Amino acid sequence: MELKKRVYFFGNKTAEGNESMRELLGGKGANLAEMNLIGIPVPPGFTITTEVCNEYFVHGKEKIIKTISDEVKKAMLRVEAAVDGPKFADSVNPLLVSVRSGARASMPGMMDTILNLGLNDAAVEIIAQKSGNPRFAWDSYRRFVQMYGDVVLGMKPENKEDKDPFEVIIEELKEERNVSLDTELSAADMQELVKRFKIAVKEKTGSDFPSDPWQQLWGAVAAVFDSWMNDRAILYRKLNKIPQEWGTAVNVQSMVFGNMGDRSATGVAFTRNAATGENIFNGEYLINAQGEDVVAGIRTPQQITLEGSRRWAKLQGISEEKRKAEAPSLEETMPEAYKDLMELQQKLENHYRDMQDLEFTIQDGKLWMLQTRNAKRTGAAAVKVAMEMLSQGMLKEDEAVLRVEPEKVDELLHPIFDSEELYKVSVITRGLPASPGAASGQIVFFAEDAEQWYEKDSNAKLILVRIETSPEDLRGMNVAQGILTARGGMTSHAAVVARGMGKCCVSGASGLEINYKQRTVTVKGKKYGEGEWISLNGTTGEVYEGKVKTIPAKPELNDDFNRLMKLSGKYAHLQVRANADTPEDAAIARKFGAEGIGLCRTEHMFFKEDKIIPMREMILAETVEDRCKALNKLLPLQQKDFEEIFAEMHDLPVIVRLLDPPLHEFLPHDSKGQEEMSKVMNVPVEVIRQKVESLHETNPMLGHRGCRLANTYPEITEMQTRAILQAVLTLKKKGINAIPEIMVPLTGILYEMKFQEAIIRDTATKVFLEMGEKVEYKIGSMIEVPRAALTADRIAESAEFFSFGTNDLTQLTYGYSRDDISKFLPIYLDKGILKSDPFQILDRKGIGQLISMATLKGRSVRPLLKVGICGEHGGEPSSVEFCHTVGLNYVSCSPYRVPIARLAAAQAAIKSKK
Amino acid sequence: MELKKRVYFFGNKTAEGNESMRELLGGKGANLAEMNLIGIPVPPGFTITTEVCNEYFVHGKEKIIKTISDEVKKAMLRVEAAVDGPKFADSVNPLLVSVRSGARASMPGMMDTILNLGLNDAAVEIIAQKSGNPRFAWDSYRRFVQMYGDVVLGMKPENKEDKDPFEVIIEELKEERNVSLDTELSAADMQELVKRFKIAVKEKTGSDFPSDPWQQLWGAVAAVFDSWMNDRAILYRKLNKIPQEWGTAVNVQSMVFGNMGDRSATGVAFTRNAATGENIFNGEYLINAQGEDVVAGIRTPQQITLEGSRRWAKLQGISEEKRKAEAPSLEETMPEAYKDLMELQQKLENHYRDMQDLEFTIQDGKLWMLQTRNAKRTGAAAVKVAMEMLSQGMLKEDEAVLRVEPEKVDELLHPIFDSEELYKVSVITRGLPASPGAASGQIVFFAEDAEQWYEKDSNAKLILVRIETSPEDLRGMNVAQGILTARGGMTSHAAVVARGMGKCCVSGASGLEINYKQRTVTVKGKKYGEGEWISLNGTTGEVYEGKVKTIPAKPELNDDFNRLMKLSGKYAHLQVRANADTPEDAAIARKFGAEGIGLCRTEHMFFKEDKIIPMREMILAETVEDRCKALNKLLPLQQKDFEEIFAEMHDLPVIVRLLDPPLHEFLPHDSKGQEEMSKVMNVPVEVIRQKVESLHETNPMLGHRGCRLANTYPEITEMQTRAILQAVLTLKKKGINAIPEIMVPLTGILYEMKFQEAIIRDTATKVFLEMGEKVEYKIGSMIEVPRAALTADRIAESAEFFSFGTNDLTQLTYGYSRDDISKFLPIYLDKGILKSDPFQILDRKGIGQLISMATLKGRSVRPLLKVGICGEHGGEPSSVEFCHTVGLNYVSCSPYRVPIARLAAAQAAIKSKK
Repeated sequence: MELKKRVYFFGNKTAEGNESMRELLGGKGANLAEMNLIGIPVPPGFTITTEVCNEYFVHGKEKIIKTISDEVKKAMLRVEAAVDGPKFADSVNPLLVSVRSGARASMPGMMDTILNLGLNDAAVEIIAQKSGNPRFAWDSYRRFVQMYGDVVLGMKPENKEDKDPFEVIIEELKEERNVSLDTELSAADMQELVKRFKIAVKEKTGSDFPSDPWQQLWGAVAAVFDSWMNDRAILYRKLNKIPQEWGTAVNVQSMVFGNMGDRSATGVAFTRNAATGENIFNGEYLINAQGEDVVAGIRTPQQITLEGSRRWAKLQGISEEKRKAEAPSLEETMPEAYKDLMELQQKLENHYRDMQDLEFTIQDGKLWMLQTRNAKRTGAAAVKVAMEMLSQGMLKEDEAVLRVEPEKVDELLHPIFDSEELYKVSVITRGLPASPGAASGQIVFFAEDAEQWYEKDSNAKLILVRIETSPEDLRGMNVAQGILTARGGMTSHAAVVARGMGKCCVSGASGLEINYKQRTVTVKGKKYGEGEWISLNGTTGEVYEGKVKTIPAKPELNDDFNRLMKLSGKYAHLQVRANADTPEDAAIARKFGAEGIGLCRTEHMFFKEDKIIPMREMILAETVEDRCKALNKLLPLQQKDFEEIFAEMHDLPVIVRLLDPPLHEFLPHDSKGQEEMSKVMNVPVEVIRQKVESLHETNPMLGHRGCRLANTYPEITEMQTRAILQAVLTLKKKGINAIPEIMVPLTGILYEMKFQEAIIRDTATKVFLEMGEKVEYKIGSMIEVPRAALTADRIAESAEFFSFGTNDLTQLTYGYSRDDISKFLPIYLDKGILKSDPFQILDRKGIGQLISMATLKGRSVRPLLKVGICGEHGGEPSSVEFCHTVGLNYVSCSPYRVPIARLAAAQAAIKSKK
Repeated sequence: MELKKRVYFFGNKTAEGNESMRELLGGKGANLAEMNLIGIPVPPGFTITTEVCNEYFVHGKEKIIKTISDEVKKAMLRVEAAVDGPKFADSVNPLLVSVRSGARASMPGMMDTILNLGLNDAAVEIIAQKSGNPRFAWDSYRRFVQMYGDVVLGMKPENKEDKDPFEVIIEELKEERNVSLDTELSAADMQELVKRFKIAVKEKTGSDFPSDPWQQLWGAVAAVFDSWMNDRAILYRKLNKIPQEWGTAVNVQSMVFGNMGDRSATGVAFTRNAATGENIFNGEYLINAQGEDVVAGIRTPQQITLEGSRRWAKLQGISEEKRKAEAPSLEETMPEAYKDLMELQQKLENHYRDMQDLEFTIQDGKLWMLQTRNAKRTGAAAVKVAMEMLSQGMLKEDEAVLRVEPEKVDELLHPIFDSEELYKVSVITRGLPASPGAASGQIVFFAEDAEQWYEKDSNAKLILVRIETSPEDLRGMNVAQGILTARGGMTSHAAVVARGMGKCCVSGASGLEINYKQRTVTVKGKKYGEGEWISLNGTTGEVYEGKVKTIPAKPELNDDFNRLMKLSGKYAHLQVRANADTPEDAAIARKFGAEGIGLCRTEHMFFKEDKIIPMREMILAETVEDRCKALNKLLPLQQKDFEEIFAEMHDLPVIVRLLDPPLHEFLPHDSKGQEEMSKVMNVPVEVIRQKVESLHETNPMLGHRGCRLANTYPEITEMQTRAILQAVLTLKKKGINAIPEIMVPLTGILYEMKFQEAIIRDTATKVFLEMGEKVEYKIGSMIEVPRAALTADRIAESAEFFSFGTNDLTQLTYGYSRDDISKFLPIYLDKGILKSDPFQILDRKGIGQLISMATLKGRSVRPLLKVGICGEHGGEPSSVEFCHTVGLNYVSCSPYRVPIARLAAAQAAIKSKK
């Protein structure tokens, strides 16, 4: 292999890498280097690059070890020099190291970590002797064997209900010793555990546990690389759209020990509150423990700040005395180290200009930083942090706008519990408000069960109830409405992942007794089984019995949100409209800052009770006369609908789409429905049946709908045009200014459009004459058939605006039926044939090409042609960015996605400027 | 209106127009002018342009008369000067004129004609006096009133079974006079008829018959324009793809009279045989008759040449004596005029360098030409005429190739009666071999009935049996297999139209007694009712009782056909391949000169009995293992299929398309079929039902099929690749050279193609290793999803050839389901929203744009990329022309369309050179 640098040293305030090298060194490696460069105490170590990971999957373990062996050995010598004393694999003064993965993007808990590597039967004795703390030495050794056994040697439980095989051994010994806590086990007990662990390894794997530190190291490095391809990492990447090609780096770092006694500790912290965004330093720690203990949620950790500790105690109903005795804050237990930590966290936040998520270890009173990274946060926190940092002068306006992921804004719009309803249900217990939001659902205890329930019914509402969660639970968490754990703090796996997913989570609800075998959870003596309903309030930590009604959130009351939206408006070029069919939707859209309606679907109106009967009369009509009779009944009803929507959207444009779906959608397809219709309408059921039969289509998606209907029955367009313009004129008389834009759906041929235009203009002339007044209106084309995009220069001869219906355009350009795609889409995504679902993220190469081509062609004929999109992509940030790039005038999306689209539009404009 | 010339005079060997002005003057007008210019005797007249027709439909009758009035009057003065004596609307010496339509393309009998215009009660007396022939004068008058009443005043029968109201009056008078023939009526009788006709007109219309010649003329001109928009003209244009915008011209011409007595006659003639193409002048005439009598088929006319007359008599079983007495030839009755006619027909054919269709009138011994035009002809005639004119040196090679409409070649491939079978049926009567071919069908007597039968069952085989046909019968003729008439000759309406349609026709079968009221036809005393089967041989004129089996035609035995095909091969750039799934189809394709197979669909093979069971096992399989087991059973069977096809196509390339349709197509959807399958396969019926249910799709066209299947179940592609390559290697051992090209259907994404390519190449490597020998093969992509065309530069990274599946590409680009399109396609064609059915004629603006774009993009990556089409458009001449224009390498079509495509390809190459 060619000569390139594959291993990067860091330590003693110097480093070969830096923050900007995250692609090569991974996030963790780059930040470890950077922290050294800015003078933060970090245990020396080195990073094996992400490129080696990719090479590993091409060339295999043996080849890779050979390739990097020299560089690793040289780096290890520099580490030994930096720690000045212990040496790796030394029989006199052995150096222990940690081995951790670190990808370009943070993947919390997804991949594997091994601590205390380098220990063996000889080394442990030396460590015990040197530290004067045999229990620490043996505890470290048994942790190492346990982690290495799990990660490298594959010592996993056989069944999902089973415990970890090493935990089983620990439990046995505790019983034998008649103790309940790990900390009550003696040095000799730890030695016994190591012995029993090794026997278990030999039994399961057939080989002895490796005692050579170099063999241990290569095994660990390979295991970290392998973990890049384990199921949960693959799933995480898929959920978070992280490319497999990025690979992971491996960080090998000299150990510092939080488990060296009562002057040692380990912890994690956030520079601000990751759930709410409040500018309050917070975090959790454990005395005499190693890093994984905190994150894994096995022991509920203590708060770092005194204030945080007191708040925690209050939530848990613990007295100040008991708190002080059992769970004092770091501020109280190690004030010096606490002071150092406060200084460092501020330094790091200032340096990175973002909220940090820190890992630290205190070894014998001295503080070491093990990691810093930009903290994952909820949507609310993201907005608050960005706006406060803007106020603090840490960020400029455009930087602050770029700082919030548009999708995250969605969380601010999630429903919350109706406070009126909360009086009707009882709080059964409380936990930590780990991830805000409100969720009601049926209890499930296993992630696999959650998945299965969801597969059977994708509308299933589930609450995943676990003692604690682990990366294996990811899929289950993804399909659940909320997560409730009995153990683990605000920084536990469940909490971190739930916040990342924007999912409600209550963690550390210690009042829960969970029995996995029986699939029950008991709270204060009352048992709840699988399938029973509970509700979680992730903002307060409260857990309720039964279902609770939710109401829409009120983000408009949030000043930070309002400020962000105002800034978005300032920077965005794209106009954001909403898809809204009712006055209610229109009101929401307007509240969220929509600058008009981009798609008002008229067909939904026809399903309302007062309209469905004349609609059906229209469909059953055999002559133009009868059809007109039925349409005349619809006219005043539809006009009223339009008046209400136009009034709500006064002074803003409203695109009304003429009737689109095939007529059979308005008829009942089951015989019961047909019989009812027969009675109500006094029409023989046979007539209805025959009509349904005659309207049946093999491929309804490609059938008689859109302007194909309107060109078959021009009187429908006449009626709808009348309803629109009469509504506008009626409002005008009341002093309300409506701006109608009439859109012809499913055009594919110029003459389809011209015929419709002629009908609309003729009808308008008649209406204006009848009502003695004129108004402005536009006529446009919905571009959703590929041919329309290809011949857009012709369509634009007639159309005054284009609206891309990207849902149908995607269906036709790919030849995919959304109703049937589930048969192969998951396979295509799994195999990587599709990088993403084109119905979620606009396909730039195909659909995007059509949009861009049609926009150019359309404007070549009509330079001021207004162009927008109104498919679901209109509210998806990367699609919005594309629309900005190709110079569209607006995007239109569902009312609740308007803020997301506005932010995305602003970001697109800022990015394209840079 | 602007100043432009709207009226063109011709007469006395001079003319304002000429042959090249057919767009402006219509075909008839341009040729009337041209004939003057080359010295042919033509009655003087003038032509009102086609532009006036369009103006007429915009501005209306009154405005148009005002616009052209001056020009018409001036032209009329020139006509009067040319005829030197009579003047239009003159009370002393009145000039009579004919008014005829004449569109750019010939539309035989579609539009209206009025003769003898200018007659009134005063004029008739003068004509009687001047001609010394009162019967002639009154006959002309009654003809004029009859025609004018019909065409201008709307004197039509009330019901389809009713006779023409004027005919009824004639019949009544004949009964009163106790005579049977029109010719037996005296001058006084004719006068009586005029009187009665006028009373009928007054009764029906409420107004007197107009006596002012100018009023008559304007009425006639307007009626000709109106006739452009009558139903049968619209239908004819639709069938023949003539644009409405062309409009018709109006020809006003001084009358010459074929009904002036026994030295007068009128006739039509062909310079060659329009049915067979033989170089034999032929035609029919009637003594003492006016033009319409011959064409309308009311009286069976006499032959022009003696040879023709003798042949006719033989066919009719008439003795030479009787023939001489009752139906002598023009050669015998008027040898002088005959000689003139022979000279003129030769002059005209030489001048136009094409077979001519002539109309002439002999007035008192002098020959006048009333029309010449390139004759409509059967496919066989077209081929023969072109090749013979080439041999005669009248045409050059490329001209001869251009002379045959490719679609016409289709007729040479129509089935003919199996001569073995003919012995089993009896000839019930004989008529004239008016249009060749063979047809069996059920008797219908009315065109409307034929249409209704056909609407109910589009597979209905019908023979339309009429006394004579008229333009109103066009729709019915179009849906019938053949036409049988009791009256009318080789140039009757039925004969001309049937030849134009390529439909079998026997005309003038005088042995038929047709009773419309009873809906029966009696032949030699035997009655046949509606719905009974008869058979026609249009090549011999024979009519058979019952059905007769047909066999494929053998055009390859036709030297002219072979020569034309050879010339096509010489001039064409496009390769022509065939779509063929069986060795039988492949053999036919090869016989017709296919240069390979462009589409071999493998799925049809799976429906054969030996394959459907393992196919169904494959579909029911729940594991990859079970699926492979079933596929292994299919492998040898499919390999054998390929061996047969490859052997048939040795040394020519064969594109095999991998499995394409959705799996549910292979399962029975009805419970009976499911129960049978359950028994045969020993699988519970519930399992089958569930499978069918789970495979159901809302839009199967957009569903789980094509390479989506193959990427879900890669083992299908493995099996098919194996079958293909093992077949090739097996043949190779026998010394047979197969050239396989493997095509992946429905690709839309590069990686779909790459995944399939990888499977195919891996499998090929294995097969070559196993069989110890390699062969060349190509892998290509079927481009039928719009996205594939848009991203063709990517697809071409993997694909070695492209084949446009224009059927599906059209479905997706328009968003039309072929199965459902009948709901709106007819309306779209009627309204002109679509100019033609895009599934028949390739849409150049949309689909064509994609094809051209994809070809350019594909070749930008892979310059030698082979590109072709394999949809049904591959055999449609205008689509083939397009494929030539955009530089495709080949077209592929059904075997029977290979000759058409070859000719079209040659013509495209010749045209693009010119």
